[in-house]
Amino acid sequence: MAAKYPLLLTPGPLNTSERTKQAMLHDWGSRDGGFIELTARLNRRLTALARAEETHVCVPLSGSGTTAVEAMLGTLVPREGRALVLENGAYGRRMCNILARAGRNFDFLESPENEPLDPAAAAARMDADNRISDVVMVHCETTSGVLNPLAEISEETTRRGKRLLVDAMSSFGAIPIDARQIIFDGLAASANKCLESVPGMSFVLARKTHLKACVGSCHSVTLDLNAQWQGFETNGQWRFTPPTQVAAALDSALDQLNDEGGIGSRFARYWENCHTLVTGMRRLGFETYLADEIQAPIIVTFRMPADPAFDFATFYDALAARGFVIYPGKLTEDASFRIGCIGDIRSPDIKSLLRAVESVLGEMGGNKPAR
Amino acid sequence: MAAKYPLLLTPGPLNTSERTKQAMLHDWGSRDGGFIELTARLNRRLTALARAEETHVCVPLSGSGTTAVEAMLGTLVPREGRALVLENGAYGRRMCNILARAGRNFDFLESPENEPLDPAAAAARMDADNRISDVVMVHCETTSGVLNPLAEISEETTRRGKRLLVDAMSSFGAIPIDARQIIFDGLAASANKCLESVPGMSFVLARKTHLKACVGSCHSVTLDLNAQWQGFETNGQWRFTPPTQVAAALDSALDQLNDEGGIGSRFARYWENCHTLVTGMRRLGFETYLADEIQAPIIVTFRMPADPAFDFATFYDALAARGFVIYPGKLTEDASFRIGCIGDIRSPDIKSLLRAVESVLGEMGGNKPAR
Repeated sequence: MAAKYPLLLTPGPLNTSERTKQAMLHDWGSRDGGFIELTARLNRRLTALARAEETHVCVPLSGSGTTAVEAMLGTLVPREGRALVLENGAYGRRMCNILARAGRNFDFLESPENEPLDPAAAAARMDADNRISDVVMVHCETTSGVLNPLAEISEETTRRGKRLLVDAMSSFGAIPIDARQIIFDGLAASANKCLESVPGMSFVLARKTHLKACVGSCHSVTLDLNAQWQGFETNGQWRFTPPTQVAAALDSALDQLNDEGGIGSRFARYWENCHTLVTGMRRLGFETYLADEIQAPIIVTFRMPADPAFDFATFYDALAARGFVIYPGKLTEDASFRIGCIGDIRSPDIKSLLRAVESVLGEMGGNKPAR
Repeated sequence: MAAKYPLLLTPGPLNTSERTKQAMLHDWGSRDGGFIELTARLNRRLTALARAEETHVCVPLSGSGTTAVEAMLGTLVPREGRALVLENGAYGRRMCNILARAGRNFDFLESPENEPLDPAAAAARMDADNRISDVVMVHCETTSGVLNPLAEISEETTRRGKRLLVDAMSSFGAIPIDARQIIFDGLAASANKCLESVPGMSFVLARKTHLKACVGSCHSVTLDLNAQWQGFETNGQWRFTPPTQVAAALDSALDQLNDEGGIGSRFARYWENCHTLVTGMRRLGFETYLADEIQAPIIVTFRMPADPAFDFATFYDALAARGFVIYPGKLTEDASFRIGCIGDIRSPDIKSLLRAVESVLGEMGGNKPAR
């Protein structure tokens, strides 16, 4: 087993490089000049990744990706506004729960889990209800791995003067998003997905003109993006104790994204991982849940084989014992499991996984897993 | 300069040991068996530190200490309840802001920043207003460094059948709290204070019988302690991506607390740090803000010297250049600065600081700093 095993073939936390982890071996004073500089650099670089320097600010938070999503919805959807949640999976549905708990008016438009969101249906719903102020969506829905049509939906919201708020948790850093082309008012993402850093920090890119207006709108003190941003504007410091080592790891991870050649190069590596995975798993008899043309190269959902000799718990444990951590399914209706393509992994790692899958299938006996 | 410099003489984040930081050099699958075990072990040990195994559960969260405080107040103070906040500093006032934002009924009882909270006054207020359901207080108020009389206030709340919710952020792990003697329903603390781990994770010890009843009471999804706890009960997993490396660091830090001899030994080390600091600074002409008998051995507030030759920014920068990070003041009325006694530091470190202070004072010129 190589030093980096176990391989985490999940939607995150992922394998991070040694260099990223080594960046955590220092204690920072959270209100000291060095850390203030680090924070400013992070915010600048994260905004630049979306080409949003002119229009947006980056507001980081200590916490999970869902922390950033709740902060985005709670701060940017006005109390008297109305959100339309476009959803085709668990993460879209979770945003409905968050809006409900925060006391926001909202409605939702559901698409099947194996299809991308439908921009035309979203447009029709906006036209039918002029109370809608904000449209909310997930870019890559990790439930299935489907890539949703962000650019097309952004065109529809922009044309109608609605705000667009995006959960880009598992796409940001690997799938290009150019804020000069794709108009959005909020985008939430996390350090530990395609940016390949460790978990514990997330952030929102918020349109500055709108964020400025959201004074006191949030239902929570710690999740208030307007107050958090004002804190940085005042003295460059986090309002509450930041995860200093986690922030330093992200700073290093962004250096490494740069070294790799940026988002385009990372996309290409993930695409190759995904292609190797899907081709190899099909050769072993597995079936993907999504059609190839709507599959994001982030995480792949496989249908659970029908053969009674195939037991998922056994399969999972046998792979884990060989150093490969895969992920359970999250579909509403179909039995499935998932394998991630992201993190500090390359095509040879996927080939090692495929050999392990083949060996485990041999041990489990039964037919090939085709349904 | 020793390897561990800069010395962080602040209320946290602090200096952590090399062993604690080395514990972060691994990537954990957050839903894998190994991490589930680590989480269970953490929760068990944190509950045991307060001798609360029989009565309370530990609910960890990704985020700062204030995240835990907001989760505690938002989940445990019922929507139809009424909180009484006893406050003598910025952290008490912050709890009022949190309650206001969460839409809870509350009132507050203020004490001067240089005095401990007054149990008799709290008792009188409870007797005067029987709508009060919850009493809320900070154990060690980091604004000044004063230790508040937790046991005495707990007696008053218990006698009257009120719940007691405690922000024990900067005391937990160094000042003994025995839940069998001191009755409380919630206690919020963080990994990166006296437990000497890295920032990014906090937790609440919540009385199980009450927590169970708080279904859906929280104003936030991510801060909902009842739902977070139910998640652990269901499958041992965090509801949302945990800060895996930060959790592993805390697990190691708890091993080291044990190795040191537990909370009593840590208290003794901090007390020696504090004693060395106060004695040495007085010798150099500085004056403490608090009387010795109400000073917690956590962080010491010094009055800003009146001599116009003493410039705090110059003083701070010159100490930082020598590897010592101190902390600005936070008092409402008096100019002050603070120096912490906690973290992976010992009396010889404090002596090095004192030599640096003496040398900086010499460079700055002017009289001795006595007012």
